[in-house]
Amino acid sequence: MKIQSPDNNSPKKELPTALAELHVLIKDDLEKTNQIIIEQLNAQVELIPQLGSHLINSGGKRLRPALTLLTAKMFGYSGTQHALLAAVVEFIHTATLLHDDVVDGSLTRRGSETANSVWGSKAPVLVGDFLFSRSFQMLVEHGDLQVLQIIADACAVISEGEVLQLVVTNDLATDETKYMQVVSSKTATLFAAATQLGALLCNRSEEEIAKVSNYGLLLGQAYQVVDDALDYSATQETLGKTIGDDFQEGKITLPVIHAYAEGSEEEREFWRLCLEDTNHPEEGLKKAIQIIKDRGSLDYAMKTARNLVEQAKAQLASFPQSTERDTMLKLADFAVDRSY
Amino acid sequence: MKIQSPDNNSPKKELPTALAELHVLIKDDLEKTNQIIIEQLNAQVELIPQLGSHLINSGGKRLRPALTLLTAKMFGYSGTQHALLAAVVEFIHTATLLHDDVVDGSLTRRGSETANSVWGSKAPVLVGDFLFSRSFQMLVEHGDLQVLQIIADACAVISEGEVLQLVVTNDLATDETKYMQVVSSKTATLFAAATQLGALLCNRSEEEIAKVSNYGLLLGQAYQVVDDALDYSATQETLGKTIGDDFQEGKITLPVIHAYAEGSEEEREFWRLCLEDTNHPEEGLKKAIQIIKDRGSLDYAMKTARNLVEQAKAQLASFPQSTERDTMLKLADFAVDRSY
Repeated sequence: MKIQSPDNNSPKKELPTALAELHVLIKDDLEKTNQIIIEQLNAQVELIPQLGSHLINSGGKRLRPALTLLTAKMFGYSGTQHALLAAVVEFIHTATLLHDDVVDGSLTRRGSETANSVWGSKAPVLVGDFLFSRSFQMLVEHGDLQVLQIIADACAVISEGEVLQLVVTNDLATDETKYMQVVSSKTATLFAAATQLGALLCNRSEEEIAKVSNYGLLLGQAYQVVDDALDYSATQETLGKTIGDDFQEGKITLPVIHAYAEGSEEEREFWRLCLEDTNHPEEGLKKAIQIIKDRGSLDYAMKTARNLVEQAKAQLASFPQSTERDTMLKLADFAVDRSY
Repeated sequence: MKIQSPDNNSPKKELPTALAELHVLIKDDLEKTNQIIIEQLNAQVELIPQLGSHLINSGGKRLRPALTLLTAKMFGYSGTQHALLAAVVEFIHTATLLHDDVVDGSLTRRGSETANSVWGSKAPVLVGDFLFSRSFQMLVEHGDLQVLQIIADACAVISEGEVLQLVVTNDLATDETKYMQVVSSKTATLFAAATQLGALLCNRSEEEIAKVSNYGLLLGQAYQVVDDALDYSATQETLGKTIGDDFQEGKITLPVIHAYAEGSEEEREFWRLCLEDTNHPEEGLKKAIQIIKDRGSLDYAMKTARNLVEQAKAQLASFPQSTERDTMLKLADFAVDRSY
């Protein structure tokens, strides 16, 4: 994560190339995935492909489907089903984003207006439902009950995590354990499912599937922790979405949990006022960012993320060296060393 | 449908007993279904069973799961999987209601506050997602890909229908064909899926499955047409939800399509003002109800529904007489002759 402005001279500046390298390595597979996405977005009611492609083509990182493709490639997959499963993973991700943005009332994502900002909140709820349903249609077509189970389980865990996040919003009693529970379920579960699917396609052993699944889970956790830190540190232009959204919505994320625990009584009063009473004083966000910086809370969050990423990388240690494995390792570093 | 007040002396007065008879006939199966619903609503995050059971236990008619149970019983099913599939059908229905009520901003359903009225609109979106996901988990556990396909297809068609309904809202150019397309997809599809599942469990022939599926589809169409008529004719107390919701939301339903087509230029101007410009004059609903009555538009809608119901009943003609078949025929009559 780049805490400073985008023109800083940090040695991490070259790191987004991990993403570029990834996209070169699985270029053909990603193209097939995109083709399936376009085909499957098709529906009689035009608003569905319109709204769906607005988000899907908005320059997302395609991290989750890339994980399915990359894992399959690492294990030498030579079949034709990987792009279909990757497309499903992206559909599920997109459906959750559509519903998330409605629930959060978010106006910007990936530097563009959110679907709810363009079409209002009704259509994204229903198009999200369509994407969930279409995903299961695609999986039925694929015909593997184990794959269906992974995705159905992931969807249940994700929605449960989203509800949990809602429940702990505005509640400063939320501790790090509860926070990590939210992060694991709402974000990391789909990362884990994505890698699992890649391994499953190649009929790998349970032990190997568990390893790549753990890699995905830990990577996803790190990714979300960094996301939450960026909400207090990035610039809007770089991040592509509004800074301080979590603060405005009263979401209790790791930087806040740390700053609140370490804070003076006056600071704790400030956090209660802003996050529990949602009574935002003028320049509240500016002050929140300052406190979080002063209390070392961003450093703490980043250390937590880095630790998770190291654990993620360790899961891959027993696999033979390969370009794919190297890319998965670099991807893990990117999850922490990114500015968007 | 009882257009007059509940104390009228219409000979149709005894008809809601069809529902009571149905519930007696499949009492044990419905109890098993309810037990599975309670078990499967369980989740670590308490808000999920709380919110889910608020709607599920609010005295719905359980029509859709009853159709699965009744069809299975008619075909002599002796296994244990019917209640599970019926529970899935009720979960899917509940999920769509939760999302519908958010999308429509409805405040009352089944005589109680809607979930969004109690918890705000965020939680019902996410709990709806949970119910969809849990349904697919249950179906994976059941393990029949054909059943999975029926539900996945139904969910896709339902959400597509909901989007279509959104698109044609406030558009008086919507004709009866387009209206029936909305009705078929958003409502009748799940009725058809419910009966199909019952027949599938009993390994019936394709022809037999098609017949009960058509029965479900036509019954569901009639049911929705009556629902839309009740919105201009029932009393709120009897209906259990706000009267005139469709009118307020600018939904173009059959009574309106008929009244608009048959209306004077002054009346058409009134409909445009209310439904397209959503500029509601005082006593607008009262005037709308009067015009719809004067133009015979309720009669037209009811005749359409009655026609659909007769077609539905005809689908069952080739099956041998049985208590279950008789109940399905009565249920079809109830769909039209109800006041709620």
